[in-house]
Amino acid sequence: MTSSDLYPVSRLAAVQEATAKAGIDALLLTPGPDLRYVSGYDAKPLERLTCLVVPASGEAYMLVPRLELPAAEASPAARLGLEFVAWDETDDPYRIAADRLGRVATVGLADRMWAMSSLRFRDVLPDTRQVLAGSVLRELRMRKSAVEVAALREAGEAIDAVHRQVPEFLRAGRTEREVGRDIAEAILAAGHATVDFVIVASGPNGASPHHDVSDRVIQPGEPVVVDIGGQLHNGYCSDSTRNYCVGEPPAEYAAYFEVLRRAQEAACAAVRPGVSCESIDAAAREVITEAGYGEYFVHRTGHGIGIETHEDPYIVSGNTEAMEPGFAFSVEPGIYLPGRHGARIEDIVVCGENDGERLNLTPRDLVIV
Amino acid sequence: MTSSDLYPVSRLAAVQEATAKAGIDALLLTPGPDLRYVSGYDAKPLERLTCLVVPASGEAYMLVPRLELPAAEASPAARLGLEFVAWDETDDPYRIAADRLGRVATVGLADRMWAMSSLRFRDVLPDTRQVLAGSVLRELRMRKSAVEVAALREAGEAIDAVHRQVPEFLRAGRTEREVGRDIAEAILAAGHATVDFVIVASGPNGASPHHDVSDRVIQPGEPVVVDIGGQLHNGYCSDSTRNYCVGEPPAEYAAYFEVLRRAQEAACAAVRPGVSCESIDAAAREVITEAGYGEYFVHRTGHGIGIETHEDPYIVSGNTEAMEPGFAFSVEPGIYLPGRHGARIEDIVVCGENDGERLNLTPRDLVIV
Repeated sequence: MTSSDLYPVSRLAAVQEATAKAGIDALLLTPGPDLRYVSGYDAKPLERLTCLVVPASGEAYMLVPRLELPAAEASPAARLGLEFVAWDETDDPYRIAADRLGRVATVGLADRMWAMSSLRFRDVLPDTRQVLAGSVLRELRMRKSAVEVAALREAGEAIDAVHRQVPEFLRAGRTEREVGRDIAEAILAAGHATVDFVIVASGPNGASPHHDVSDRVIQPGEPVVVDIGGQLHNGYCSDSTRNYCVGEPPAEYAAYFEVLRRAQEAACAAVRPGVSCESIDAAAREVITEAGYGEYFVHRTGHGIGIETHEDPYIVSGNTEAMEPGFAFSVEPGIYLPGRHGARIEDIVVCGENDGERLNLTPRDLVIV
Repeated sequence: MTSSDLYPVSRLAAVQEATAKAGIDALLLTPGPDLRYVSGYDAKPLERLTCLVVPASGEAYMLVPRLELPAAEASPAARLGLEFVAWDETDDPYRIAADRLGRVATVGLADRMWAMSSLRFRDVLPDTRQVLAGSVLRELRMRKSAVEVAALREAGEAIDAVHRQVPEFLRAGRTEREVGRDIAEAILAAGHATVDFVIVASGPNGASPHHDVSDRVIQPGEPVVVDIGGQLHNGYCSDSTRNYCVGEPPAEYAAYFEVLRRAQEAACAAVRPGVSCESIDAAAREVITEAGYGEYFVHRTGHGIGIETHEDPYIVSGNTEAMEPGFAFSVEPGIYLPGRHGARIEDIVVCGENDGERLNLTPRDLVIV
């Protein structure tokens, strides 16, 4: 899989067409996932402005600080044959952009554009309405191509390999942080470019869904939630949660773990084209609620994933959007008993032509270490 | 040095006073350096809104996704005694913020607030003018306290320790990437929480100031620019550049390296309260220009540094702001001969009561390895 497959040159024309259709005059894409998606360029986020300007019609161009010109020219963006407009240390790149844009009614800003840039664009284009570029790009980014799915599958295999090593790292007497450090190394060794998060939540910490690691010493008999992920060099992300126990778990834990197992299974089984995103959330929630644990499932069922760990579509009550082939997202219900322990099972699932395909394949049962 | 020293509780009142003085009704601080500076909370940047609302008068409060509440409560922000307003998965946190704010004429947005948040704030507060929180915070952030200077000194010592190890890593036959990997490990081992950048620019790559690493094999007789930095666990950043040569350097290189050495010395010697930022740039530039290399010094002389690697004040032509005690910034002139090689010498310097103190103390001479 090369950049050319994952970030095809043809994408720019598709983005321009979608931009025109949305009635937006131009997208202004500063470093971040939107810029990378459109151009393949994984530009450093710096205070000096780098900005890909994608007009609805006409030629796209990229403003680059002169210092970053070699990096931009060496990046996949160079394949697009666009003009690099290099600006010097004492130039005002926002003014240069405004002069080139002329009168424009609406621009779409990269979802992660910093306020230090969006407010400068507002100042130099005072009569121009700013909307999110995401309003155009989300439609494209949500529908993963076959090569994008392959990249997510590769990410899934990489993080699965790490979960298989967790039993070697996890034992009573070690701190969450020590275990987390080993996991972080394994994430890199498995082929990720970055470690995005390492949650090792032992005992009562397992009841806080976004706990990361602490100096807490893991005790015998304690369940441990391990939720880990990173970004491959190609930009695509991994994210998977499994549950471990140092010895035999408490009986009440074993009881709700089985409920959770069924809930996650039900949500995965509910995935197919045409169903709403919220119905997949409901599929998991129903099982948990019927078993009497509804109040302990305190978060949405999942988030989309691609070149960001969290992106559209969100699997949450209120999201009536219909599933389509190529949608990729997490299915990660959890049950959390405050002060005691908690569990969460998470796979990345991609919607196919008929059903969902899980991209994480390690056993979902509680792993006794 | 504890969080309480570096992010004192008293800072909030100082920020409120400065906010009132600037005629801003409230600051809206999402995760990033502005939030950390004011509260000590190093919050994860997520699509779910975390936002510290700092009104010019009255009580500050923090909107937090319920999932992040344990993290926020465990963070240094809890010392401020402010209210945490937890919001649930199906709530609209922007609406909650707008309802609590009521009618406000002007809000200051964190400089790095994402457009996905700033545009939502614009929608729920359509009659409110948005400005940068940085317009208030830069005045405070630029003037480092004695403990902040101590933290930067610690960062300087940590990166100096890495530069002392570079001769062990650097030799002909290795690639820049291999050397860079060793340096990255050493940056973490020296006490940094993150590796922010590792530039290993050999031979002709040294002529590109923002080159990072490549698969280029380092050749005998080649000069190598090594520019490295990271962020300590306490938030403060390091950044230092030294120059190495694998064997004896080319004569033309040795000639301009001496010029560069004098230029960097002159700029450091120019630091004292009351002089303009641009005069420090000019001090370095004059030496280089007089020696006939002016066209090869293609960037500003430096950038401020603190809890961001690049922050105010910038040491650049056009910045007439007067130096004050506590200003901390890089002094890093360079000379770059396209296609051949280049050199840059960089120290972090802090302005004291009478002159500048360098926080990087390894020898600035060319290191022959």
